[in-house]
Amino acid sequence: MRDLLGGKGANLAEMTRLGIPVPPGFTISTEVCHEFYRRGRKLPAGLREEVFEALAKVETWMKARFGDPDNPLLVSVRSGARASMPGMMDTILNLGLNDRVVRGLVEQSGDARFAFDSYRRFIQMYSDVVLGVPIEGFEERLEALKRERNVSEDTELTAADLEQLVADYKKFVRMDTGHDFPDNPREQLFGAISAVFGSWNTPRAVTYRRLNGIPEHWGTGVTVQVMVFGNLGDDCATGVVFTRDPATGERRLFGEYLPNAQGEDVVAGIRTPRPMDRKSRKPGDPPSLEETEPRCFRELVLAAKLLERHYRDMQDLEFTIQRGKLWMLQTRAGKRTALAAVRTAVEMVRERLIDRKTALMRVSADQLDQLLHPTLDTKAAPASIGQGLAASPGAASGAVVFTAEEAESQAADGKDVILVRRETSPEDIHGMHAARGILTAFGGMTSHAAVVARGMGRCCVSGCSGLEIDLARGLATLGGVEIAAGDEITLNGSTGFVYQGAVPTLAPTMGPDFLTLMRWADGARRLRVRANADTPADAETARKFGAEGIGLCRTEHMFFQADRILAVRRMILSETTEERAEALRHLLPMQREDFMGIFRAMTGLPVTVRLLDPPLHEFLPHTAEEIEALARDLGLPLEVTRRKVDVLREANPMLGHRGCRLAITYPEIYEMQARAVFEAACRCAKAGVRPRPEIMIPLVADVKELAELRALVDQTAEKVFRDEGRKVRYSVGTMIEVPRAALTAEQVATAGEFFSFGTNDLTQMTLGLSRDDSGRFLPTYVEKGIYPTDPFVSMDVDGVGFLVKLAVERGRKARKDLKIGICGEHGGDPQSIRFCESVRMDYVSCSPYRVPIARLAAAHARLEERQTE
Amino acid sequence: MRDLLGGKGANLAEMTRLGIPVPPGFTISTEVCHEFYRRGRKLPAGLREEVFEALAKVETWMKARFGDPDNPLLVSVRSGARASMPGMMDTILNLGLNDRVVRGLVEQSGDARFAFDSYRRFIQMYSDVVLGVPIEGFEERLEALKRERNVSEDTELTAADLEQLVADYKKFVRMDTGHDFPDNPREQLFGAISAVFGSWNTPRAVTYRRLNGIPEHWGTGVTVQVMVFGNLGDDCATGVVFTRDPATGERRLFGEYLPNAQGEDVVAGIRTPRPMDRKSRKPGDPPSLEETEPRCFRELVLAAKLLERHYRDMQDLEFTIQRGKLWMLQTRAGKRTALAAVRTAVEMVRERLIDRKTALMRVSADQLDQLLHPTLDTKAAPASIGQGLAASPGAASGAVVFTAEEAESQAADGKDVILVRRETSPEDIHGMHAARGILTAFGGMTSHAAVVARGMGRCCVSGCSGLEIDLARGLATLGGVEIAAGDEITLNGSTGFVYQGAVPTLAPTMGPDFLTLMRWADGARRLRVRANADTPADAETARKFGAEGIGLCRTEHMFFQADRILAVRRMILSETTEERAEALRHLLPMQREDFMGIFRAMTGLPVTVRLLDPPLHEFLPHTAEEIEALARDLGLPLEVTRRKVDVLREANPMLGHRGCRLAITYPEIYEMQARAVFEAACRCAKAGVRPRPEIMIPLVADVKELAELRALVDQTAEKVFRDEGRKVRYSVGTMIEVPRAALTAEQVATAGEFFSFGTNDLTQMTLGLSRDDSGRFLPTYVEKGIYPTDPFVSMDVDGVGFLVKLAVERGRKARKDLKIGICGEHGGDPQSIRFCESVRMDYVSCSPYRVPIARLAAAHARLEERQTE
Repeated sequence: MRDLLGGKGANLAEMTRLGIPVPPGFTISTEVCHEFYRRGRKLPAGLREEVFEALAKVETWMKARFGDPDNPLLVSVRSGARASMPGMMDTILNLGLNDRVVRGLVEQSGDARFAFDSYRRFIQMYSDVVLGVPIEGFEERLEALKRERNVSEDTELTAADLEQLVADYKKFVRMDTGHDFPDNPREQLFGAISAVFGSWNTPRAVTYRRLNGIPEHWGTGVTVQVMVFGNLGDDCATGVVFTRDPATGERRLFGEYLPNAQGEDVVAGIRTPRPMDRKSRKPGDPPSLEETEPRCFRELVLAAKLLERHYRDMQDLEFTIQRGKLWMLQTRAGKRTALAAVRTAVEMVRERLIDRKTALMRVSADQLDQLLHPTLDTKAAPASIGQGLAASPGAASGAVVFTAEEAESQAADGKDVILVRRETSPEDIHGMHAARGILTAFGGMTSHAAVVARGMGRCCVSGCSGLEIDLARGLATLGGVEIAAGDEITLNGSTGFVYQGAVPTLAPTMGPDFLTLMRWADGARRLRVRANADTPADAETARKFGAEGIGLCRTEHMFFQADRILAVRRMILSETTEERAEALRHLLPMQREDFMGIFRAMTGLPVTVRLLDPPLHEFLPHTAEEIEALARDLGLPLEVTRRKVDVLREANPMLGHRGCRLAITYPEIYEMQARAVFEAACRCAKAGVRPRPEIMIPLVADVKELAELRALVDQTAEKVFRDEGRKVRYSVGTMIEVPRAALTAEQVATAGEFFSFGTNDLTQMTLGLSRDDSGRFLPTYVEKGIYPTDPFVSMDVDGVGFLVKLAVERGRKARKDLKIGICGEHGGDPQSIRFCESVRMDYVSCSPYRVPIARLAAAHARLEERQTE
Repeated sequence: MRDLLGGKGANLAEMTRLGIPVPPGFTISTEVCHEFYRRGRKLPAGLREEVFEALAKVETWMKARFGDPDNPLLVSVRSGARASMPGMMDTILNLGLNDRVVRGLVEQSGDARFAFDSYRRFIQMYSDVVLGVPIEGFEERLEALKRERNVSEDTELTAADLEQLVADYKKFVRMDTGHDFPDNPREQLFGAISAVFGSWNTPRAVTYRRLNGIPEHWGTGVTVQVMVFGNLGDDCATGVVFTRDPATGERRLFGEYLPNAQGEDVVAGIRTPRPMDRKSRKPGDPPSLEETEPRCFRELVLAAKLLERHYRDMQDLEFTIQRGKLWMLQTRAGKRTALAAVRTAVEMVRERLIDRKTALMRVSADQLDQLLHPTLDTKAAPASIGQGLAASPGAASGAVVFTAEEAESQAADGKDVILVRRETSPEDIHGMHAARGILTAFGGMTSHAAVVARGMGRCCVSGCSGLEIDLARGLATLGGVEIAAGDEITLNGSTGFVYQGAVPTLAPTMGPDFLTLMRWADGARRLRVRANADTPADAETARKFGAEGIGLCRTEHMFFQADRILAVRRMILSETTEERAEALRHLLPMQREDFMGIFRAMTGLPVTVRLLDPPLHEFLPHTAEEIEALARDLGLPLEVTRRKVDVLREANPMLGHRGCRLAITYPEIYEMQARAVFEAACRCAKAGVRPRPEIMIPLVADVKELAELRALVDQTAEKVFRDEGRKVRYSVGTMIEVPRAALTAEQVATAGEFFSFGTNDLTQMTLGLSRDDSGRFLPTYVEKGIYPTDPFVSMDVDGVGFLVKLAVERGRKARKDLKIGICGEHGGDPQSIRFCESVRMDYVSCSPYRVPIARLAAAHARLEERQTE
């Protein structure tokens, strides 16, 4: 009943059913949330009565009454959507207190300090969430009182101090809002319910949903539940526990607790928590829960086992111990790192908890990225300047920034940044997303920073206690080293170490669980996965990651190398066909060498070579000095060189003289490239390598272009095969990246053996959207929901997808065995891969590091398709 | 049987059937031409026998034998395609001569000089066309002989001179080709037949076909016909005659002849010909044919009448008088000016020769352009410096060029040029096409220059006898005035006068026949015709030309006016919404004034106002000086101004921050424009004007953009209507110019009442073709036939047309009464209008001067559709 009750509500009901101790309560369904928004943020009629009825049952069960000064019952009011959105929505605790009820709580608990502390926390939380009073006002008053009393910790304040603080808080609320703080518990209750529903649409919740692809229309449930207290004394505690280690996936109870504390204290990361069991306790650590509360600990271990078996997935549990009694407050599927997701999935298959298909579906393809990023080369690392918790694995270097805004703005300029904060809060999400890594001074493994960073796949070191930050001066110190904003540091999220400067990284290693999962994925997918690779080194990496060929080898990338660019420029600035041919002759052996290296690395696998694509102007220098140097190098008058460079400049180079248009006007360019491919293939074949070249003509808009250039390629092949005395099988095909090529695919397919969708350009042209220029408005478009996501990241299914589908259908109509793939950025995006599966492409091609992601995403796509078939 | 025999062959057969005297002969069909090309330019087997058989019949009829020295028969071998291609393909005359046969011709004709002159002409023509010997070699030898004999005219050479020249010619052929000139008449015959078939694919023929839309696959027929001679003495003549005046359409025999000449002499324009009848004879002219050959003249008048009645169209006849006997060599529909086409069509309806529908189809819409161009303001004209023949009407000014190459290259640079030549030849076609006007020193009304210029709608003055050209010095003189290359002159093609400098022009006047034809067209068409007009003046012109509304009013054109551009720039460089709003407030009254003027000019008719479209950067200055001036004007530091201007620069502005994207990010821009439209409409309505505003949102790619901006427009309308106390009916729609908008038209249509296809941008995006940059390769593409025509001139039906069709269908599916039009350049192109009719658009919109063309083209499209229905 997740959809109706939200994750938290449904799980509480389920736990109750399993006989696990849960504080009694009830959940208001997500349907009420819809009604709330439909009515312009008003609670529906009839809700009051239903709430009172449910509350009465709880009162009976608890033998206490809500708002009764003699025997008070306090409740929490909590949010809970279908998917977990940690910290994104609001929660109110200790609800039901007023000046009279607090007296009852004093009596009931026998602890006046606790009662007034609960009361002042409640006022602060309620005023912030429901009444919109600035929270700083309360903090200032608390700090002032501490100064007055000359104490440093909240706990040193007495009950009388807190009572005075309560009065002070209420005065502040009246001053700020013009109204008294509501002292009717029922009014408090409905205010809180409305506020929790309302928190579904706070900007930070909206941002989180956008980043995580959670639909707007799901809505949240509201759970009203009896309060239990982990802060009634030393026989009380509160904590969070995972059934497996969320960082590594190791099967062990993993968690932390705080004695005499409320749950919020653990999550907020203000006090550094204690270990769960003896095993996890390090020298100098305070005693573990196993030692301080052995009975509750055993009960907790049993509950954790039961819940994992029940849900057949790793669980994330919140618990509170009130005066020696364990209460489970929440269970949900635990967020985990990619490493943990893979290990958990594979081990659970071995434990016969789940089948392989479920295991595959348990690991998100996007998340795999974390495992494929380089890790720190510890041998090359200098001495660290500090250590915190290894909160989210991976390594990252970057310039230090101290605010989320700075992180976002510098990242937008293409800079790698490390966000350094005392602690993070949901307001920092956009900055965390923009940063390469996050370093915090406070907070544990389940603090906001840690949870969010793991979800995002950002490297994170949290609770780095030596870290001091002086925001005003834009300066931090760690291990005696001063770090100014802009200084480079390096984080190792897998060990918690922090280094000064940028430390070299090592290629990622893929463990046995990873390889097992990949093998299962390969068995489950239909789509082939290739890589985009331009050099022998890239090709080797790609093959190591499991690429089944090269889907896009951009020959022009070879042109930019320092020893070649002059020959390329000479070719571009040629005035006659002869001059051009001469310059091309110079380039031929270099290109041939490139292709030989690539064929060797990909022996037996197809290699799609795209002939020259970019506008020639891209190869020319731009600044006055560079042009002068070029004139000298080419032995041309400066004026002539400048004029030639100038003539090649275009108004809209994306739609200009590029791709196959270059070869229609200067056939000798493609002729040279085809010759290099075929000579390389013949020579490789003689040396025992099995080259499988596929020659791809870019930017075709009409079949006649393809037919003419394919004839050129075929003639060149014939000549080379004759000269080399050897034949090599090859095919010729085209990129489909101009809308017209997609629209006329039936004709285009008659002249080529394969289509490869170049969805970067296809997106630019179909949406009329220059990738280089869209920065000024695309973010607004995504924010306003005009496009659900950046169409360069996930394929625009309605527009670009329509063309792709049409081209696949029409192309196959003309040529049954047409081979079809995709080689734009979308080839490594799981959502787009799902689309590629749905139109029955033959393969996707993506960057080498995304190959495993594509392999898993292809398996997911196939499994999902089968489910609906 | 035009398709099979070609125009010439079919007409000869038809004339024979009508009893008109035609020299006997036979035609080899176009099927043989196809076979010729299929076999790699080889004549098919069996042809020889069939040709001999037909030749035998002709021999029997003529009582003479081909190749018989005692009684020789000479033939001509002529090309003839389904459509006339004057001068584009090859013809060989006097075929069948050799050293022995020429003796027979001497005896037969009793004129040794004629016989050897025919022989030397034959050798020259055959060597040029069949053997590929450079024609200059013959001319040099002729000139050398004339110098040797000290004579200036060919006619002063004796028979012996010519016999010597023949020997000399043959020696030259042997030297040049390494073979003897073929003296076997049968070998000559088949060589000539092959050469004529081969001439179907000479570059000039290919160019002509491309310019005139004649398909490659038609092929040519070859007619072999007995030679008749107009150069056997003073009782011989040759001439060309039209059944109506091809320049004005006046119903009278119109033509010219040369006594004692071959037909080629008339067409080549080397001698200035004589008038046909007394009426046309001007003082100082030599006697007319009516006077010199009254019997033949009467016979000719009768034949002309018969043929016009038979073909129900104006005929262009070639005739030869051999020793007092008239032979008709050819009849075909006469090429005519637009003026003549309109007059002929309208008068033939009155004469009950044709019906209105036929009359409409007789006038090509493209050709109408000639009538819509300005004519010379004779009052403002200075004294002319010379006069030639009024060969093709209209007026043109431009810089003088002396070669076709120069004409083409300067025109490509955007210059208006006048091509000045002694005479023109088919090799000059590309230059004539590029020039605004053509002036020749020689040649009559039916000379190459005149015929081709009329067909192209270029103004032309031919046979301007005072004109002397010194090519080497790049200098001409006329009427004592020296004209250097680059000097400006003006031609009046309607009077034949030539002026020094650029003379002002007058707006075209549309005569009563034109108005009659337009009325018929309006009755026959279904499509409405609107104009693209941005100012009240344009709107008035458009209405005068019959526009039924404005289909595209580009509001940004108003922004460029000197008194506004500063306000526009201030708006663009605003940093805050308030600054921008302030700058926009300044522009509001100006825009309102513009719209009021346009609504007044278009009262009662729809006016589609497109809101701001181009990238903002287009409004900013580019040079350093201009930016400095702007900084001063705006009171901004230079550095800030420069940076702001720089930031707005885009990599691909066509696909950048423009169109509705500007309003998604800065809604206040469209809000101001909508307010200006509605305020103007309300105020006009109060003054009795009937405004019908249609607000058009450009560059929409997704329905959400349109929905959001339409809401903004509607809200603005509501506000204005409330403030002005008056409502005006309006509609809101969108340009369809981004492929995605066409693909998702079903959604887009839900948010707007009309679609207007912006096929300029749609072509750029669908073909991936930047209009500004395609100059470097598009000509190659059209030459190679990859695109049949420039896709910015005629709509690419396969690609862009597919999207248009799809969008029309899907748009109407979502909204039955969706109004659909086109406002790109294609809206004035007849071929594209045919497409618009086929998909049942509601209207086309084009530049004011093309409105009549569109009206006629729309009628044609409708009539053609009905024919196939």
